[in-house]
Amino acid sequence: MTNLLICSRDALDYIEQIEQAKIANLKIQISPKSPGSIINGKEVDVLLGEPELCISALPYCPNVKWVQSTWAGIKPFVDSAPHNFKLTGIKNCFGSQMREYVFSYLLYFSRKIQTFNELQSQQNWSQPSCSQLQGKTLGILGMGSIGVEVAKTAKHFQMEVIGVAKSARKLDCVDQFYGLSQLASFAHRLDYLVVLLPHTNETDKIIDQRFLSQLNEQCILINAGRGQVIDEKALLHALSQNQLQAAVLDVFTEEPLPKGHPFWSLNNLYISQHTAAISKPKEISNIFLENFRLFQNKQTLMHLVDWKKGY
Amino acid sequence: MTNLLICSRDALDYIEQIEQAKIANLKIQISPKSPGSIINGKEVDVLLGEPELCISALPYCPNVKWVQSTWAGIKPFVDSAPHNFKLTGIKNCFGSQMREYVFSYLLYFSRKIQTFNELQSQQNWSQPSCSQLQGKTLGILGMGSIGVEVAKTAKHFQMEVIGVAKSARKLDCVDQFYGLSQLASFAHRLDYLVVLLPHTNETDKIIDQRFLSQLNEQCILINAGRGQVIDEKALLHALSQNQLQAAVLDVFTEEPLPKGHPFWSLNNLYISQHTAAISKPKEISNIFLENFRLFQNKQTLMHLVDWKKGY
Repeated sequence: MTNLLICSRDALDYIEQIEQAKIANLKIQISPKSPGSIINGKEVDVLLGEPELCISALPYCPNVKWVQSTWAGIKPFVDSAPHNFKLTGIKNCFGSQMREYVFSYLLYFSRKIQTFNELQSQQNWSQPSCSQLQGKTLGILGMGSIGVEVAKTAKHFQMEVIGVAKSARKLDCVDQFYGLSQLASFAHRLDYLVVLLPHTNETDKIIDQRFLSQLNEQCILINAGRGQVIDEKALLHALSQNQLQAAVLDVFTEEPLPKGHPFWSLNNLYISQHTAAISKPKEISNIFLENFRLFQNKQTLMHLVDWKKGY
Repeated sequence: MTNLLICSRDALDYIEQIEQAKIANLKIQISPKSPGSIINGKEVDVLLGEPELCISALPYCPNVKWVQSTWAGIKPFVDSAPHNFKLTGIKNCFGSQMREYVFSYLLYFSRKIQTFNELQSQQNWSQPSCSQLQGKTLGILGMGSIGVEVAKTAKHFQMEVIGVAKSARKLDCVDQFYGLSQLASFAHRLDYLVVLLPHTNETDKIIDQRFLSQLNEQCILINAGRGQVIDEKALLHALSQNQLQAAVLDVFTEEPLPKGHPFWSLNNLYISQHTAAISKPKEISNIFLENFRLFQNKQTLMHLVDWKKGY
C-alpha cells in the first residue's frame, strides 16, 4: 500500500484525475487546513502539491520518500525543507501558455493597441505607424524548456533570438548564445527581453541597475520567471527614468503585490498577477502518474531536482 | 524610351528605390496634384500608384499599357477605369504584417490584457483565468497568400484552422475547407474569424445578418480585408445584441470612418484605422521592378488582374 497526501488548493481535481488511473494499492488523502490534523502522517509515502502547502505538511509526515511539486518554482523546498526525500518538479507544461502570454504583450506594444483604443475614443482616424516583430531582436534569459518554446515562436515571427546560458547549445531556434559573464553586451542588443529564470542563489537580482542601464530606451522587458531575479528598486528607477520603454511583470518578490506599492501606478509598467502560466491539474496529474509508475518500479523519476544545484 | 508616371503619396520613396535599379531608357515623372497638368500625358506608357490617384490620371494618359497598383485592393480599377491596359496587383508583401496584426488582437482578447490593465488601475490582485489559443478554432474567409500566412501562424499556436474557398486545396496549414454554399455551418464552428476577402461582386456583404446569427456568442471577428464584404448595419446590430463577443475592424465601407458613426463608440468593437498591413515602398518597388523587366521583355506580368474575375 502506498499512502499519498495531496496538499493543493486543487486537491479535488487531482483526486478525480488520479482515480481515473485506477492504481491498485494506493490510498489517497487530502491534507487538512491545519497540517497538525493529518491522520497517520507517519504512514505517508508521497506528497503531491504546491510548495508552501507541502512544506507545512512535511513535519507531520517524517517518512515521505518523494514529493511531486505541482508548481515549476521549487525554490521554497530547496530553502526551507529537509532534503531527505526525492523532489520532482514540472516541465513541458507551461510552454504553450507562456508563448501566448509573451507574444500577447510583444504584439500589444508593437501593434500599439493601446494607442488605437485611445484614438477610437476620440473618434480620430489618425494612422500611427506600427513596427513589426519580424527582424527585431528578442533576448531570452533562461533557456529551459519554456524558453525554447518562446524562442520557437519568435523564430516563427522571423525575429532574431539571442539567449543567455551557462553553456552554449546548438538550437535551431536560437541565433546566438551569451554567457553569464557577457550580460552587458547581451542587454545592449535587445528590442525585447523575456526573463524566464528560476530563482537560485546565482540568479538572485541578476537584473540589476548595471544590467538595466545597458538596455536601449525602446526595449520592453517581460518577467515571467520569478520576481527575485530582478532588483525591483533598480527597475522602478529605470522605468521612471524611461531607460527602457516598458516592463510587463507577472511575478514579484512579494505576492500578492501589496496595495500602495509604486509598481501599481507606473504608467509604463504592466502587471499580470502571476497568471502567465498556471498549473492545470489535468496536465500535472499526467506527470504525477507517469512518475508514480517509475516510483513504484524504483526507476529514476522525471524532472528530479538536484538538491545541490537547486533546480 | 519608356515613360513612367508615379501617382502615389510616397512618390519620392518610389523614385529613390527605382533609380537605384539604374534602368536604361526609363523616364520617370511624378503626377502633379491636378492630373490635368500632367506633361505629355499621351507619351506615358506605365503607371505606378494608389488606385484612386491612378484613376484620376488615366484620362490624361490614353496610351497607358500597364498599371502597377501599389495597393492590394484593386476593385476601384475594376469598377471605374477603362480596361484597355494590363493591371497588376500586389501579393506576398502583407503576410508578415497581417499575421502580427491578427494575432495581436487574438492574444489581446485571450490573455485579457484590457482586464489586467483595469485590475492594475484598482491595485487589485485578482487572477482572472485566461483561455489559450491552442485547441481553439480559427476560421479564415479568404485563403489567398495572406490567409495562408495567418493560417501558418495559427498552426504554430496549435489551433484548428478551417477555411472557406471556392475549391478545396491541399494545404498543411488548413485542417478543413468549406465551400461558399456552406457558410452557415462554417460560422457555427468558430472561436475566431478572420476576414481577408477582396471586394468583388461575389463577396459584397457576404457577412450578413444570416451569417452573423450563426456565430457563437464567444466568437471574435476580425476584418482586415475590405469593409464592403460586411453588412455593417447587420454587424452593428449583432454586436449591440452580443451575438458575438467582439469585432476588430481595420476597414470600412466609408474611409475615413465618419465622425459620429455608431461604430466609434461600441464597447465591443475595436478600430484600427486601416493600418493592419501597409504598403512599404521598398517592397512594392521590388515587385514593380521585377514586373518592369517582364514588361520590357514582353513576358507575362506577375499578379496580373483578370478583368472579368475582378481579382
